[in-house]
Amino acid sequence: MSILAIGSMALDSLKCPGGEADDVIGGSVTYFSLAAGLFAPVSIVAVVGEDFPKEVFDVLHSRGVDTDGVEIKPGATFRWKGRYEDDLNVAITEKTDLGVFADFKPVVPEKDRTKDFLFLGNIDPVLQSEVIDQVENPRFIALDTMNFWIDGKRDELDEAISKIDCLIVNDAEARMLTGEDNLVKAARAITEMGPEYALVKKGEHGAMLMGRDFYFVLPGFPLEYVADPTGAGDSFAGGFVGYLAKSGDVSPSNLCRAVAYGSTVASFVVEGVSIERLAEITIEEVEQRFKELGEMTAF
Amino acid sequence: MSILAIGSMALDSLKCPGGEADDVIGGSVTYFSLAAGLFAPVSIVAVVGEDFPKEVFDVLHSRGVDTDGVEIKPGATFRWKGRYEDDLNVAITEKTDLGVFADFKPVVPEKDRTKDFLFLGNIDPVLQSEVIDQVENPRFIALDTMNFWIDGKRDELDEAISKIDCLIVNDAEARMLTGEDNLVKAARAITEMGPEYALVKKGEHGAMLMGRDFYFVLPGFPLEYVADPTGAGDSFAGGFVGYLAKSGDVSPSNLCRAVAYGSTVASFVVEGVSIERLAEITIEEVEQRFKELGEMTAF
Repeated sequence: MSILAIGSMALDSLKCPGGEADDVIGGSVTYFSLAAGLFAPVSIVAVVGEDFPKEVFDVLHSRGVDTDGVEIKPGATFRWKGRYEDDLNVAITEKTDLGVFADFKPVVPEKDRTKDFLFLGNIDPVLQSEVIDQVENPRFIALDTMNFWIDGKRDELDEAISKIDCLIVNDAEARMLTGEDNLVKAARAITEMGPEYALVKKGEHGAMLMGRDFYFVLPGFPLEYVADPTGAGDSFAGGFVGYLAKSGDVSPSNLCRAVAYGSTVASFVVEGVSIERLAEITIEEVEQRFKELGEMTAF
Repeated sequence: MSILAIGSMALDSLKCPGGEADDVIGGSVTYFSLAAGLFAPVSIVAVVGEDFPKEVFDVLHSRGVDTDGVEIKPGATFRWKGRYEDDLNVAITEKTDLGVFADFKPVVPEKDRTKDFLFLGNIDPVLQSEVIDQVENPRFIALDTMNFWIDGKRDELDEAISKIDCLIVNDAEARMLTGEDNLVKAARAITEMGPEYALVKKGEHGAMLMGRDFYFVLPGFPLEYVADPTGAGDSFAGGFVGYLAKSGDVSPSNLCRAVAYGSTVASFVVEGVSIERLAEITIEEVEQRFKELGEMTAF
């Protein structure tokens, strides 16, 4: 089955353990689609400026990503400048330039409106809802968001969340969204807001998936070195939704496997700066590490 | 197979989410032996003052703990006063009164010198080494320690660690001991100090076990409420060593199962203040939750 994804495409300037990098490729839908594309066909909807490197489209196409829904507009691409300090789970934003993203009006190409899986990357919840309204009854909708929208557009976010199957957030966002300090309670509260599933990412500590009648916990894949945490969350979502689409199975036990695939893909992504590692990995490498993750968590 | 354990028996005064409590039962070997005693016979070596409640011995005996090695001396029992704030993984010490513990000279009863499993709770590494010298070639020695000894008696601690099979520390202690920020590197560095295994506890985030040629990661059992984290680490060690002794099997795959039993026992302990929950649980409850942990981590 195939996937429709919406989100940002960006140029990032980073200070991370792997070094400093200026105007490297970033954006939620870039990471998501390169990850999901390892498993299943992905069509993306996004906007970039005329300064966005054309070669990136070649990288996306070589992973089978359909970029017909990407608008190239006069002006500058969305830019994010950030850094990581001791806690690699926390990105510190230094500057954001919206550029052409400021008046992004997502239009889903006609041919992509019947996709089975829909991923709504972290953008304005009003736009997320508009995309949901443009698609025809997808089988599974996953949505990612962040503190900025939880704080600034709560009603609109609640509206979008009420229409989805799975909310994907990190631990801090889950706590902020629900007002529950305890992560189990926070995840359960999310499943009472509409989505059947709450997928909570805990950075190096792994992830948990709560459904209405089951609960899954996964430790993080142990890494000796993290070059750049940027995009880990979106790649995690990409591996998760990608595996679901590939298998065409959204049963609870398959959702758990999909979480493990998401974590596996993300574990590669952080080994390189920007998309460098993500762009080069193969599904065979992912399968090998997925197997290792299974072995090192079995008891 | 049976276990010999040494450590503190204490009276704790606590401020924790479960409330405030004065002079409640604590101490590393108390928690350890009540946990390990669920699985296998345990003999303990410790010292208490005449003020230590006699009923605690009844609780220990009813779990099959042999207390012949506990000296009752004139004077006050070791007292620890502490509290927990937002991060329940961190105990903040307010006061320590060593009492009769100040000149504790552990003497292992003749009959206990041939035990197969030896647990050295967190005490002065000089005493830990003295106990190792009193026992006859045990099959498996595990040792717990803390920042105080890593900082204050490093050479003596290194000496003790060089004689053991498994070091049990938390993540902060593993980093402090090895100077490695990355936990995988820290665990590997520990296995290069002498012990074949490094068992690193990560509080609510679970635990990891590193051997020379394998690696095991386990997420924490998800809890909706933590009343009192005191004793979680010692109970974890108790479940770990207890299961090893019960099965008489120290193969890598059984060590992984033992880590999961340790985590399971600790997940009960923190549900009550002091030893209240630990003293009442049964092996059947532990087996049931161990099974649940297996189900919620399988993929």
